[in-house]
Amino acid sequence: MDAIEVIVAKRERRELSDPQIDWVIDAYTRGEVADEQMSALAMAILLNGMNRREIGRWTEAMIRSGTRMDWSVLDRPTTDKHSTGGVGDKITLPLAPLVAACGAYVPQLSGRGLGHTGGTLDKLESIPGWRASLSAEEMLAVLRDAGAVICAAGDGLAPADKKLYALRDVTGTVESIPLIASSIMSKKIAEGTGALVLDVKVGSGAFMKDVDTARELARTMVDLGADHGVATVALLTAMDRPLGRAVGNALEVEEAVEVLAGGGPSDVVELTVLLAREMLAAAGVSGKDPADALKDGSAMDAWRRMIGAQGGDPDAALPRAAETTVVTAPSSGVLARLDAYGVGLAAWRLGAGRARKEDAVSFGAGITLHARPGDAVREGQSLMTLHADDATRFDRALAALDGAYAIGDAADPALLPLVIDRITP
Amino acid sequence: MDAIEVIVAKRERRELSDPQIDWVIDAYTRGEVADEQMSALAMAILLNGMNRREIGRWTEAMIRSGTRMDWSVLDRPTTDKHSTGGVGDKITLPLAPLVAACGAYVPQLSGRGLGHTGGTLDKLESIPGWRASLSAEEMLAVLRDAGAVICAAGDGLAPADKKLYALRDVTGTVESIPLIASSIMSKKIAEGTGALVLDVKVGSGAFMKDVDTARELARTMVDLGADHGVATVALLTAMDRPLGRAVGNALEVEEAVEVLAGGGPSDVVELTVLLAREMLAAAGVSGKDPADALKDGSAMDAWRRMIGAQGGDPDAALPRAAETTVVTAPSSGVLARLDAYGVGLAAWRLGAGRARKEDAVSFGAGITLHARPGDAVREGQSLMTLHADDATRFDRALAALDGAYAIGDAADPALLPLVIDRITP
Repeated sequence: MDAIEVIVAKRERRELSDPQIDWVIDAYTRGEVADEQMSALAMAILLNGMNRREIGRWTEAMIRSGTRMDWSVLDRPTTDKHSTGGVGDKITLPLAPLVAACGAYVPQLSGRGLGHTGGTLDKLESIPGWRASLSAEEMLAVLRDAGAVICAAGDGLAPADKKLYALRDVTGTVESIPLIASSIMSKKIAEGTGALVLDVKVGSGAFMKDVDTARELARTMVDLGADHGVATVALLTAMDRPLGRAVGNALEVEEAVEVLAGGGPSDVVELTVLLAREMLAAAGVSGKDPADALKDGSAMDAWRRMIGAQGGDPDAALPRAAETTVVTAPSSGVLARLDAYGVGLAAWRLGAGRARKEDAVSFGAGITLHARPGDAVREGQSLMTLHADDATRFDRALAALDGAYAIGDAADPALLPLVIDRITP
Repeated sequence: MDAIEVIVAKRERRELSDPQIDWVIDAYTRGEVADEQMSALAMAILLNGMNRREIGRWTEAMIRSGTRMDWSVLDRPTTDKHSTGGVGDKITLPLAPLVAACGAYVPQLSGRGLGHTGGTLDKLESIPGWRASLSAEEMLAVLRDAGAVICAAGDGLAPADKKLYALRDVTGTVESIPLIASSIMSKKIAEGTGALVLDVKVGSGAFMKDVDTARELARTMVDLGADHGVATVALLTAMDRPLGRAVGNALEVEEAVEVLAGGGPSDVVELTVLLAREMLAAAGVSGKDPADALKDGSAMDAWRRMIGAQGGDPDAALPRAAETTVVTAPSSGVLARLDAYGVGLAAWRLGAGRARKEDAVSFGAGITLHARPGDAVREGQSLMTLHADDATRFDRALAALDGAYAIGDAADPALLPLVIDRITP
């Protein structure tokens, strides 16, 4: 078998066989198939597609390129959530300990942010002492202690995906549903979770800009989960405006802690509880309702144990940015819209995100939103506070916010409902 | 500008702008655009196409990546021929001196064989002493002396094409008409010829297997020539059976010399004269008719001067292979067909061609055909003689010939006419 045979087959719209897929993923991982060959194949896949069988085998081959974790030693089911990423999406932070408090284990391997969307590990690293890298034994110990663990994926997990993802990033081959779905699901299946809830974000601040494409991605991933024995459900949720009131690493941890304390913005609370119920249902666990676990302090207890078990101090003061500036309402009325992409881009420019993988993030940088779409506002009132370590960052952040919000008579009727759709196997 | 922007534009079926094309070719030549990015772009071009303006600009950018030769110091027009390659296609050898003998200059940069098709330089190198590498000054001296020169392209000629061609070869992105046309034409235009005749081969032994694809390639190249001020005409000619009776390096030189001496197989003579007339007409030269120049010895004189000027001895004995074996007719009748690909593959396996660029060819290896489609044959008569340096090569060569010929009542009516079509601007 050789790379050209596989590339030409897909180029000519033929189905790739199981041996072709197995070989090309393995040979690419070993370096026998070169980057320039894999990028040509990725472009052919992007343009000519893969069917359900091909996507399943491709995912399987990427899983088999590394180790698949196994949590069968645990006495209760495992369940996890994956979000395709958005602006202000800190849901994982309260969600993992909340689900643990309701009786399931949550073994989550998570990632860092790139571009205008944040990353869960960056957020948690704003907590003094907390560390993202754990061995498999340490993961198990944290799980047993706290019921939930959030950490970085080790090098042994789907290395083929790691290599292919970096290649797609520089070759214009990211936007392929088969490649996106197999990338996400290979990592989640290799992570060993028994059940999975996918939060597929839709809107300007999300990777998927329209509902139809998001639905296709969700359907592909739900099918992949089912084909690999992982009970998988997907929700399509709104990312046309930011989620909650905080955008930025430490700012979002603060908001997550508010939710765990029984408060927090209504959309964050609603989505956290909804996703927790889905995770528990997918895992077949029925016990305490997540809304109760937020009220009775058991979710907060799990959070504190989880953070502490990974070296973090849940009581430590979080980093604050040195400089702030305020954006005020130019007129009175109702905040009609607040564009997620514009806010995400502004937070990124303030230092909350990174431009290159090697860059450090600013933990304190970000944006606090004082009004959300539908809220009445008065001329001159604060709409948002921008936080940065360096005041020279404000100009470009403010430029990103130019046109990103509008004041009118009512909320824009085109705003998406918080939950748009639910996709089941 | 960056590579991803250009890749995504073509991926989404948009036209590439002139600045995008100029930048990507230049940046690729300099190494700023990586191989894995260019191969993704090549696949997007293969699948989504380029229009006439894009192909023209792409070709122009590849020409400008190096030097464009200039023969304006010469006192007569220049004209050249390019064949897309076939089995037994030694036409360039008698053609270049023939056209020189009729009053035009022929400055031909040529290539080596890869796979089952031969290369003009490999054939000429079977002549003791002949050398393929000439400086621009040496080319001019040979042209002035003999009227024709056939040599290797230097590194300064369309280096972008050189790099891209090698990349396409290993990434399954060869079979794109815009990329094939721009590759051929960038070299031919950079070569500085004033007129050009394209011999686009069609059939099993050719790169283009069907007439429609060959016609599309021919049309694209003729348009490119016209757009760049090179008077260009294309003939579509048959490559479903081998051309002439000799396949292999020294064997083909011998046949070329027969033609120059006024003999040779009728199809080789017919095509040589026809292409010579086209080359002269495209260059606007009217004088001696090529058929006469074959008879009066002037074409042979030009050949001897051309070979001698490049260090070759036109009277030296040519290399012969040490071993031969004969294929005989299994029954009496008419040779109905003789598949060009099968014969080409057999000759390759005998040692006439190379599997990798680094390999050497055997000058003596190849096949002599004793019957051509339409010829009457008797059971037991020799159909062909196989030549190899090593008798162990015969088995695999004979296997390639299995099923490659058939004896029946008459020539296969599906055989293509020698000249199928003529494409003009």
